[in-house]
Amino acid sequence: MLARIDLALQQALDHVTATAIAPRLAQAARYAVFPGGGRLRPRLCCAVAAACGAEESPLTDAAAASIELIHCASLVHDDLPCFDDSPVRRGRPSVHCAFGEPTAVLVGDALIALAFETLAFASRSQPERLPYLVTNLALAIGLPAGLVAGQALEQEANVSLSRYQNAKTGALFSAATVAGALAAGCNAEPWRVLGSRLGEAYQVADDIRDVASAPADIGKPTGRDAELMRPNAVAELGLGGAIARLKLLVAEAQEAIPACPGRRMLQELIVDEAGGLLPKHLRFAA
Amino acid sequence: MLARIDLALQQALDHVTATAIAPRLAQAARYAVFPGGGRLRPRLCCAVAAACGAEESPLTDAAAASIELIHCASLVHDDLPCFDDSPVRRGRPSVHCAFGEPTAVLVGDALIALAFETLAFASRSQPERLPYLVTNLALAIGLPAGLVAGQALEQEANVSLSRYQNAKTGALFSAATVAGALAAGCNAEPWRVLGSRLGEAYQVADDIRDVASAPADIGKPTGRDAELMRPNAVAELGLGGAIARLKLLVAEAQEAIPACPGRRMLQELIVDEAGGLLPKHLRFAA
Repeated sequence: MLARIDLALQQALDHVTATAIAPRLAQAARYAVFPGGGRLRPRLCCAVAAACGAEESPLTDAAAASIELIHCASLVHDDLPCFDDSPVRRGRPSVHCAFGEPTAVLVGDALIALAFETLAFASRSQPERLPYLVTNLALAIGLPAGLVAGQALEQEANVSLSRYQNAKTGALFSAATVAGALAAGCNAEPWRVLGSRLGEAYQVADDIRDVASAPADIGKPTGRDAELMRPNAVAELGLGGAIARLKLLVAEAQEAIPACPGRRMLQELIVDEAGGLLPKHLRFAA
Repeated sequence: MLARIDLALQQALDHVTATAIAPRLAQAARYAVFPGGGRLRPRLCCAVAAACGAEESPLTDAAAASIELIHCASLVHDDLPCFDDSPVRRGRPSVHCAFGEPTAVLVGDALIALAFETLAFASRSQPERLPYLVTNLALAIGLPAGLVAGQALEQEANVSLSRYQNAKTGALFSAATVAGALAAGCNAEPWRVLGSRLGEAYQVADDIRDVASAPADIGKPTGRDAELMRPNAVAELGLGGAIARLKLLVAEAQEAIPACPGRRMLQELIVDEAGGLLPKHLRFAA
């Protein structure tokens, strides 16, 4: 599955970088996407499509790639000096450190555009699902409650942790599950809850890693949430409370999977994946 | 026509801001779009659709709004401290000065997403044209030669003026003409040249205004191109040469209009509009 996703991402990038008039921007765009992290969101998208009984298809691959392109764009913009000011991402210099701040702003914009172009390209002969795939992706990014809205909450006071995490992380996980179901031609809305629970679980695990991991293990600096006074699960619930919350979210996610041919397969996958999200010394049997 | 465009923009914003979880971001997004500038690009989009013989339609309005949303997004990002560092836009504080730099980055991202969502929303019952409208918009924004690629060329040395202007400005003007033809259900590619010529003409006029206008007349600081050593037509051709180039481009644009029911109407509109682009003391009879 990972190979299919990376191939789809490769093709999307090749499509627009081969004749790029700004070679440095093209290089930076590729740098932002390869080598990837866990590709969690596009794998979730493909897993949902498979659970819905869909054959592997160019549309599923494009949907998965579009989700990951938005994720990469958001990482590039989140790392900017005016947000996290993070010098390191995935174990090497962040895009603005490697290519400069102007290029990093532009790379984010270009990857957002590429995500939509990738959906459109795969939909030329069958456009019926495209309006829903585009809307799903756009709402995951922007207003009223997409990841950009979640990021904006970092600038505001007295924000509810769950509302913040739902937008900042949950929106794209929900979009991943919905996109997988849409690409498979299924009724997609029932899949939104699964994505939402998994997104919140991922964010809680990320908060735990931020306090309980070594920087070398996660490829970025630790302790940033506390430094930046950002809403986070460990600050609110303590480490033990955060781990308990993670367990609950994983159980809720398993329950939230709609009836489909691959429900059991997907439940097992979620347990496996959740196990891998925590630092080794904190792992639980989910 | 302007009222229709502003209504379409209003509806697009209402659609995503009414329930926004980040009210300040929603407010900043609206601030970036209203009150508008000349709405040149969406008016061009609507004029092309009309010249193609199309009735006024929600799809044309959505196409025009999507073009303007991208234009507004690009202004917000271009004004950022790492690019033009412009304190003023359309006669009042730029978005990052009014709302802070983080919000300005996020507003640009949110408006890009909203542009695609607007196209998708208007295409739900008739998705056949959506793949082409989405691709057209995405290529106008990103790689290989959209406005982000044009902006990236500002960071590179020895850039050809015409290649820079084609991407930085021409891409979105071309996208406006192509979107108008697509929304009208016409063969769209022949319309690209018109947009390209008009975009270059607009950029040359903008370069002329940058040296020959008072800041109060254009709602932003003047002399910035020279300060920032950016490629520009006046530096390359002198003021007289730049005016001659503008005349030539307007004539080429008129010639480039494909055969269509409203060709003469569109030719006259272009002459009218071009006349308004220069400072009063430099206007020519085109």
